[in-house]
Amino acid sequence: MNMLAVGSVAFDSVETPFGHADSVLGGSATYFSTSASYFADVGVVAVVGEDFSDEHIAMLNLRGIDTRGIKKVPGKTFRWKGRYDYDLNQAHTIETHLNVFSEFKPVIPDDYRLAPFVFLANIDPDLQMEVLDQVRKPRLVACDTMNFWIEGKPDSLRKLLKRVGLFVINESEAREFAGESSLVKAARRILSWGPGILIVKRGEYGALMFNGKSVFSAPAYPLENIFDPTGAGDSFAGGLMGYLANTGDLSEGSIRKGIILGSVMASFNVEAFSLERLKGLSRDDIKARYREFRQLTHFEDM
Amino acid sequence: MNMLAVGSVAFDSVETPFGHADSVLGGSATYFSTSASYFADVGVVAVVGEDFSDEHIAMLNLRGIDTRGIKKVPGKTFRWKGRYDYDLNQAHTIETHLNVFSEFKPVIPDDYRLAPFVFLANIDPDLQMEVLDQVRKPRLVACDTMNFWIEGKPDSLRKLLKRVGLFVINESEAREFAGESSLVKAARRILSWGPGILIVKRGEYGALMFNGKSVFSAPAYPLENIFDPTGAGDSFAGGLMGYLANTGDLSEGSIRKGIILGSVMASFNVEAFSLERLKGLSRDDIKARYREFRQLTHFEDM
Repeated sequence: MNMLAVGSVAFDSVETPFGHADSVLGGSATYFSTSASYFADVGVVAVVGEDFSDEHIAMLNLRGIDTRGIKKVPGKTFRWKGRYDYDLNQAHTIETHLNVFSEFKPVIPDDYRLAPFVFLANIDPDLQMEVLDQVRKPRLVACDTMNFWIEGKPDSLRKLLKRVGLFVINESEAREFAGESSLVKAARRILSWGPGILIVKRGEYGALMFNGKSVFSAPAYPLENIFDPTGAGDSFAGGLMGYLANTGDLSEGSIRKGIILGSVMASFNVEAFSLERLKGLSRDDIKARYREFRQLTHFEDM
Repeated sequence: MNMLAVGSVAFDSVETPFGHADSVLGGSATYFSTSASYFADVGVVAVVGEDFSDEHIAMLNLRGIDTRGIKKVPGKTFRWKGRYDYDLNQAHTIETHLNVFSEFKPVIPDDYRLAPFVFLANIDPDLQMEVLDQVRKPRLVACDTMNFWIEGKPDSLRKLLKRVGLFVINESEAREFAGESSLVKAARRILSWGPGILIVKRGEYGALMFNGKSVFSAPAYPLENIFDPTGAGDSFAGGLMGYLANTGDLSEGSIRKGIILGSVMASFNVEAFSLERLKGLSRDDIKARYREFRQLTHFEDM
């Protein structure tokens, strides 16, 4: 195992302009690990309820994911119900039932603790910190968060960032967290809190990477239809971190390639509900779309 | 002269979070031609009032722009007053006084009529058509428009597009014009109305080019402060069309380079009010920023 992922495993009910899905597999750790599994050996730490069926575990195992860290406890699995309108960058939450997730205390299995790459999906920053207290000298820790924690626990989050190498955040959340309308200034401020690399996710506009020395702009793949945006950010992080864990190369060139692979994985993920598209890709699918990203952005020297 | 530009010359009063400018030189034809002047020999057709001073004409002439087509008539020059809040993609109009512009009937001087490149800035599509009725077999006609004409004269606009090779439009206007929330589908529909190339401007998110065969995604330059976005779209079109007129190369590779040069010119333009930054660039400034765009988007093959 070269990657530890900690986050949520959930059942989602989603409505989009293209249809709806009821109680399908979702959750940040699920999307992340499925995406990362194409590149790395991933172990997941999460919690589910008694309603969580073995077929979902079997699907993750089929992707080579180590699921021993997914703890089944009495009660129901985390459930989220949401809607996307035509502006697919914006999720509207209809219902959130944290269920067993409200008592989640991540306990990292002994043999997961040496994983050189760690991804802390969007959970309470105090829990993200507890994960870091349990792991042994990872080469790279990445984390995500959301406005709920930015507004509710900004100090915990800033404390956490001192121990994080790569921070992934949405554009509006970056501005909010830094208290800066200029994204370039917001990025500089966030980098000053600790992470060496900041990646700002911009939905259908792609992503920007800041590392204090240079900026990298990655486009999103221009899909005819974004069927369901749920999990796009975690699929993105999974492709990026999976690639870095696979190569062990943390140079800027490698991070740029990882960001494109993350964008590739996110573009597949949004083509279907749940993990329907993400779970069944081939190496050729991934390579072909990577080449399309090259074609999409290519221009000659002057 | 290898480029004819028809549009507005105006006085703008602009407030942004960074300051304000009162009655400064603006207008679509002004921004376009100043930007294009770094690459091409531009002749402008526009109308101004008696309040338009010779110093503005002298500035344009200093940039090598042929201003014989700017007609001075009794009355006042077009005046626009607007405000930008922190969302700098969105202009809020406070006042519009069309003044002499309301009677604008573009008359193309004889020696302008052979220009191989023609840019129709955002004016009434019926007037844009009248310009095309006066010119002789241009190699490339480009045009811009706005929501006002999309809503008020959609049939005139579609009729015009049959005679346009390159159509430049804002993202929200592309969706509105096509009646499609999917940008990829909107682009396909607009291309079906005539233009071989569609460029969708996305403000701080850059631009997308569609030609029916491939898509090109160009980033915007990540500026610390966008001082004043006024004229960004016309500066963009000026850099692009100026480059194409200069090289005479209409291959896709050349159009991609032109789009980056357009993005370079737009990025300079928004660094100051009016044409303060755009009018005084050097070849080295432009080349250096073009290289920065290469660096901003570069990633290796997988």
